[in-house]
Amino acid sequence: MQEQTASSRQIVTRAGFASEAAGVLARVRAQSPRVHCITNSVAQNFTANVLLAFGAVPSMTLSPAEIGAFVKRSNALLVNLGTFGTERREATSIAVDAAIQSGLPWVLDPVFVDRAPPRASYARDLLFLHPAAMRLNADEFAALAGTAATAEAVAAFAREHRVAIGLSGAKDFIRDGARAVTLENGDPLMAKVTAMGCAASAMVAACLAVEVDALIATASALLIAGVAGEIAAASAQGPGSFAVNILDALHTLDADALKARARIVL
Amino acid sequence: MQEQTASSRQIVTRAGFASEAAGVLARVRAQSPRVHCITNSVAQNFTANVLLAFGAVPSMTLSPAEIGAFVKRSNALLVNLGTFGTERREATSIAVDAAIQSGLPWVLDPVFVDRAPPRASYARDLLFLHPAAMRLNADEFAALAGTAATAEAVAAFAREHRVAIGLSGAKDFIRDGARAVTLENGDPLMAKVTAMGCAASAMVAACLAVEVDALIATASALLIAGVAGEIAAASAQGPGSFAVNILDALHTLDADALKARARIVL
Amino acid sequence: MQEQTASSRQIVTRAGFASEAAGVLARVRAQSPRVHCITNSVAQNFTANVLLAFGAVPSMTLSPAEIGAFVKRSNALLVNLGTFGTERREATSIAVDAAIQSGLPWVLDPVFVDRAPPRASYARDLLFLHPAAMRLNADEFAALAGTAATAEAVAAFAREHRVAIGLSGAKDFIRDGARAVTLENGDPLMAKVTAMGCAASAMVAACLAVEVDALIATASALLIAGVAGEIAAASAQGPGSFAVNILDALHTLDADALKARARIVL
Repeated sequence: MQEQTASSRQIVTRAGFASEAAGVLARVRAQSPRVHCITNSVAQNFTANVLLAFGAVPSMTLSPAEIGAFVKRSNALLVNLGTFGTERREATSIAVDAAIQSGLPWVLDPVFVDRAPPRASYARDLLFLHPAAMRLNADEFAALAGTAATAEAVAAFAREHRVAIGLSGAKDFIRDGARAVTLENGDPLMAKVTAMGCAASAMVAACLAVEVDALIATASALLIAGVAGEIAAASAQGPGSFAVNILDALHTLDADALKARARIVL
Repeated sequence: MQEQTASSRQIVTRAGFASEAAGVLARVRAQSPRVHCITNSVAQNFTANVLLAFGAVPSMTLSPAEIGAFVKRSNALLVNLGTFGTERREATSIAVDAAIQSGLPWVLDPVFVDRAPPRASYARDLLFLHPAAMRLNADEFAALAGTAATAEAVAAFAREHRVAIGLSGAKDFIRDGARAVTLENGDPLMAKVTAMGCAASAMVAACLAVEVDALIATASALLIAGVAGEIAAASAQGPGSFAVNILDALHTLDADALKARARIVL
Repeated sequence: MQEQTASSRQIVTRAGFASEAAGVLARVRAQSPRVHCITNSVAQNFTANVLLAFGAVPSMTLSPAEIGAFVKRSNALLVNLGTFGTERREATSIAVDAAIQSGLPWVLDPVFVDRAPPRASYARDLLFLHPAAMRLNADEFAALAGTAATAEAVAAFAREHRVAIGLSGAKDFIRDGARAVTLENGDPLMAKVTAMGCAASAMVAACLAVEVDALIATASALLIAGVAGEIAAASAQGPGSFAVNILDALHTLDADALKARARIVL
């Protein structure tokens, strides 16, 4: 069971978790993990810039002829289902195989599975290949799990699929089979910039490259994204300047600001 | 004939039209229409962010396997011809069929038809499927219609194809078979940001979702874009900050500013 | 031999070269060269905006059915290997043929050839079709040439392939078979914005459209990019505002600022 693995640590206090997240941030910057991203063309540029601002190194090729080589030279993989077609699925299959063979963690972002049934069925297939984490919103969870995203349903789903789940919304809920963290950071402007969720999923992948505990990695990524979003919103005039500011905030965020601003509910 | 439909209203005064446009803006924000966009990968991110800042909800998949489902769950469709290939044309065919079956309005943006002859011929085929509106520039019109974009030629083309035409340029000319509006808002920096025209076409689609009179919807979208462009230019240092500012301006624009800044010629 | 062509001028003084670069900048703005770009979807939007801010006119279609027509109506071509697949290679083949037939200069950007072996082999094939210039970093050079990017190795490679080479890094080294320019402008934030290198390659293509001496065109593009980067960094809060500022700086840069800030080593 997931909660019994050696990598799974207890989360006892809010300050303790904030320190864990600060450690993850420091390791991303120190190690500059390579994150290969399978993501849609709407999200590619912003996702790459978020990863660079965070301290990671993105690559984005989708060509079946070379994606395996890229993944093997990476430290984590993001699989986002946006804009999926035949070639995209072939590339995904090769990339996940390469990640499994190389022992790399990977993240599933089942974006818009609530809008197109074939996407939900494909996402369910991918879950059997054991992503370390999955980030999605409540509507996407409901389409995937066939039940509303209650705390119990999410925990049950996490336990069944042995996956850390990051449920984004006005608050972020992060759960695995045994533990739960709720984050109250963020800003409504985050929903007014396209690909913000996709970029957060890429940050989860970057954190998994430096933190073996998938729940801590997922919660750290979403905490850092939420705090950067708050900092960005403070001086934004709207969604345009907000998108610029959040890249600046990710680049300059330090451990003290992260700890001071973190609003964590255990 | 277009000018005889119940949805076609008279445009009597500049203040009256500005009020119509303010009403369209308010309804976009209140109803958050879903706009599915077939557009090129250069334009996707900026188009999505313009729609979000405007108050609409974009989706962008091009996969033939799922585009029909996405369009049926949308309130309007944009078909932009940029970067067109075999798969794109198959997706377009499915999407337009789905729009017609669901009674959704759709917009044609025949971008760069003046640069590649096969694109112009494809655009002419699409016109027979009755888009509610078409947005383009004078060179594109000339390539498509085989004649220069004079007021008479545009009106004749609009009447023949029963389409509202938004002709972008230093001034914007909006015409259907019976009516004409000229807009003098905007700023030269709009031509220095890629995909600004594509994004304006997506705004036309969003307005068509909340306004059945295609001429009023098209003119409202271009008026709002032009006024937002002027506001953006006022504090821009160049095209980079302009592109950021126009997203902020679309997000914060209110009815009073729209009416005060509108420069309409009837 | 490259160094014996009529178009190849001596570079005698730093001030002389800075004046050449200022002349190239002025001609790009006056002539608005059309640059067709084969580039990956991550880079397309930023590359297009960089070209527009610089004064050039981008087009980006990759469709084999129309790319030949686009290239023939252009003044230069960029071939960037990012995200390459079957259709991309077919489009590249048609585009390079069209450029050769029309006598247009073209630029090769062998991005990430150090990450995927098939890409390196494809890049070597393309070199036999005689790009006027190639822009890359030291790792990419090593993967392509099979030897570290020393001054001698780069000069030998340039002579063998009759290509001007722009080697980007903390300093930029520009060499052809006979001449060398080193540039010390730029800022570390340039490495924190995705597609900055791809966009610089597109600027090289724009300069080749107005300057027949490939070494001067390549060095001018990289000098202008580096100086704009310094100006952008001066008021940036991080990589988000930096990316905005560099577009503004490219748009507003004048000959005096270019000459005053140029740090050239001959």
